[in-house]
Amino acid sequence: MAVVALIGTLDTKYQEYSWLVDQLAKHGVGVMCIDVGSFSTSPIADISSDEVLRAAGANPQELRDRRDRGEMMQAMSEGVAVIVRRLADKKTIDALLAVGGSGGSSVAASAMQALPIGFPKLLVSTMASGDVKPYVGEVDTTLMYSVVDVAGINSISTMVLGNAVAAIAAMAKAAKARSVVAPEPQAPLIGITMFGVTTPAADEARKTLTELGYEVLVFHATGTGGRAMEKLVESGLLAGVCDLTTTELADDLVGGVLSAGPQRLEMAGRVGLPQVVSLGALDMVNFGAKETVPEEFLDRNLFVHNPTVTLMRTTETEMAELGRRIAAKLAASTGPTELFIPLRGVSAIDIAGGPFFDESADAQLFAALRTGLADSQVIIHELDQAINDPGFGAAMATALH
Amino acid sequence: MAVVALIGTLDTKYQEYSWLVDQLAKHGVGVMCIDVGSFSTSPIADISSDEVLRAAGANPQELRDRRDRGEMMQAMSEGVAVIVRRLADKKTIDALLAVGGSGGSSVAASAMQALPIGFPKLLVSTMASGDVKPYVGEVDTTLMYSVVDVAGINSISTMVLGNAVAAIAAMAKAAKARSVVAPEPQAPLIGITMFGVTTPAADEARKTLTELGYEVLVFHATGTGGRAMEKLVESGLLAGVCDLTTTELADDLVGGVLSAGPQRLEMAGRVGLPQVVSLGALDMVNFGAKETVPEEFLDRNLFVHNPTVTLMRTTETEMAELGRRIAAKLAASTGPTELFIPLRGVSAIDIAGGPFFDESADAQLFAALRTGLADSQVIIHELDQAINDPGFGAAMATALH
Repeated sequence: MAVVALIGTLDTKYQEYSWLVDQLAKHGVGVMCIDVGSFSTSPIADISSDEVLRAAGANPQELRDRRDRGEMMQAMSEGVAVIVRRLADKKTIDALLAVGGSGGSSVAASAMQALPIGFPKLLVSTMASGDVKPYVGEVDTTLMYSVVDVAGINSISTMVLGNAVAAIAAMAKAAKARSVVAPEPQAPLIGITMFGVTTPAADEARKTLTELGYEVLVFHATGTGGRAMEKLVESGLLAGVCDLTTTELADDLVGGVLSAGPQRLEMAGRVGLPQVVSLGALDMVNFGAKETVPEEFLDRNLFVHNPTVTLMRTTETEMAELGRRIAAKLAASTGPTELFIPLRGVSAIDIAGGPFFDESADAQLFAALRTGLADSQVIIHELDQAINDPGFGAAMATALH
Repeated sequence: MAVVALIGTLDTKYQEYSWLVDQLAKHGVGVMCIDVGSFSTSPIADISSDEVLRAAGANPQELRDRRDRGEMMQAMSEGVAVIVRRLADKKTIDALLAVGGSGGSSVAASAMQALPIGFPKLLVSTMASGDVKPYVGEVDTTLMYSVVDVAGINSISTMVLGNAVAAIAAMAKAAKARSVVAPEPQAPLIGITMFGVTTPAADEARKTLTELGYEVLVFHATGTGGRAMEKLVESGLLAGVCDLTTTELADDLVGGVLSAGPQRLEMAGRVGLPQVVSLGALDMVNFGAKETVPEEFLDRNLFVHNPTVTLMRTTETEMAELGRRIAAKLAASTGPTELFIPLRGVSAIDIAGGPFFDESADAQLFAALRTGLADSQVIIHELDQAINDPGFGAAMATALH
């Protein structure tokens, strides 16, 4: 029987969760209740809040005595992520459901983000009609807006939560069925990172890889996109990575809006997946509309891409640091890794006559990479081309094959 | 058999939609394909893109000839909303599924927002990990992040779309079962609008209404909240409205961030639902963090509520205009309507000694209401109290009973 894990503050939402348990049973799935209530000792909990806190390495009694809500939420978030990951790995649970306001949603979202893509995860939340990035992250979390506060079972929640229960029970069954049926043979999957200013290179790489018999997934290097790709690498679903557009590292270094965090470009190396890497769009840091660019940057080389996107050229110093960081990440790779350097420019606007053309800055990046990778296993290809010139994307694709 | 409506650009996403149709059939539901492709004549369409455009009052051939993408998307959005609403009213369809990028998501979201709460609606989108308010609006749209671009059926989309199909098929069946089973008798539902600065009054009204045998739904007056309540009023699910916190009209008038649009406070009157109305938090316009307050307002009476919320006191002129607008809305009501005026202040900080206390401004609001409602059926109660004083919320609740 497929099993749905229910995450909730069983102290404050006892009535609602009891109803959910009953309804899930009617849909023919098993239920495992995980209690994340701060002061909860619920009779319907299969995993108590004490167990959740201990999974985060915390001492439940000490934590409760301190009565620090922020610290408690943090420990609950960490603990529940550890627990659901463990249960999912053991195939004890097949899906995750949670219902809550902003606090409960935040704890549940942490658990959902700890699970692989494809594992069904549904969050019914009062927060699901605004900026949901903190809840969804880079995984396939499904969000349902609760419309009214999640408080009591009434005419509205009977419908909204009734739909949620039907949905998660069916998804749990579908996921369990997938896990017991051998999947049809598919072409091996390759992830490619793309940006507007590296599209010609990415298109060429995609075309070449498709001709070579691969299936290609394209990720926009918007922060979420890069993290989503690395999440898939971690899940073991990709056969290789064509990481053509590593621009998110510039946003991480300088403080742009499209950072994928400092760990970007490490996952393929960590799990030993074959990767070809280039330096796409490292000439730029991304901001929103012109008026949102921080004051400290107003005298820099800024380029208004469109009304909601302003690009800032990276400096020599920043490029040298990016070179050191990328070299360190690639040198630590445990799998086959090749670096492709486009000597004549790293984006569509970093070419002779383009607004971001800056040979000295690019030279700093390239030099730091050569130095940092000198004693490594990484193969460096220096091409006397700009990244979007014909042949560059194809060369990366061919090397990955 | 339950029927799922599938909305999609069947020209560009033919492969994906064919797969969805097959999978839905395997889950034991019927499928109705609605084509919103701009230049589409798909063999799997049950409702063609021509029909969608004509439902918006457009001439398909003329529209195609003009090749204006924005105009085309607008017409598709309007047409598909008309069509799904018609199909749902006739109970021809029981749920809605769509899959797309930003363009497709926008068209599908328009259809979803046209449907009542409780009608299952699922959108699988590349846009579901950011600000989703434009897609969700104030209804219970369920969003699933597609992780990769919606392009082809591969190892990832088999899982993500497989989950989506299982979920929507089950929700369609659940919704159809609800519509044929007579619902259990429930207490009549009342909606209350609340803000932090009107919480004591709302709590008192809620307590009184609960004691009188009603079930109370609380809506935060955050723009989305007010619209959600009015959407429920339109759906016929509420027995009455205690619209204690009409502050969203101030944001609409002055340009704050929590507007619910100019039509707020009209729906109950339009459908003839009993309503009691007050003036909660009309002393304030909402902005985000202090530095986001528009420059033109920097010399006004600003109050930093917390690091992300800055309040601005409304002026005499603005209050007079709000009074005129509210009077016009209430005077047009077709159902029983009573207005409660808190003579000593409209919020927790609009009281003697409070930072927003301004008797002259409030007097302008009250005077405009008296004038505007003089020849109407609306009963006016003037209470010599501030809105949060004991008895005010109870008086509104008792009047609604």
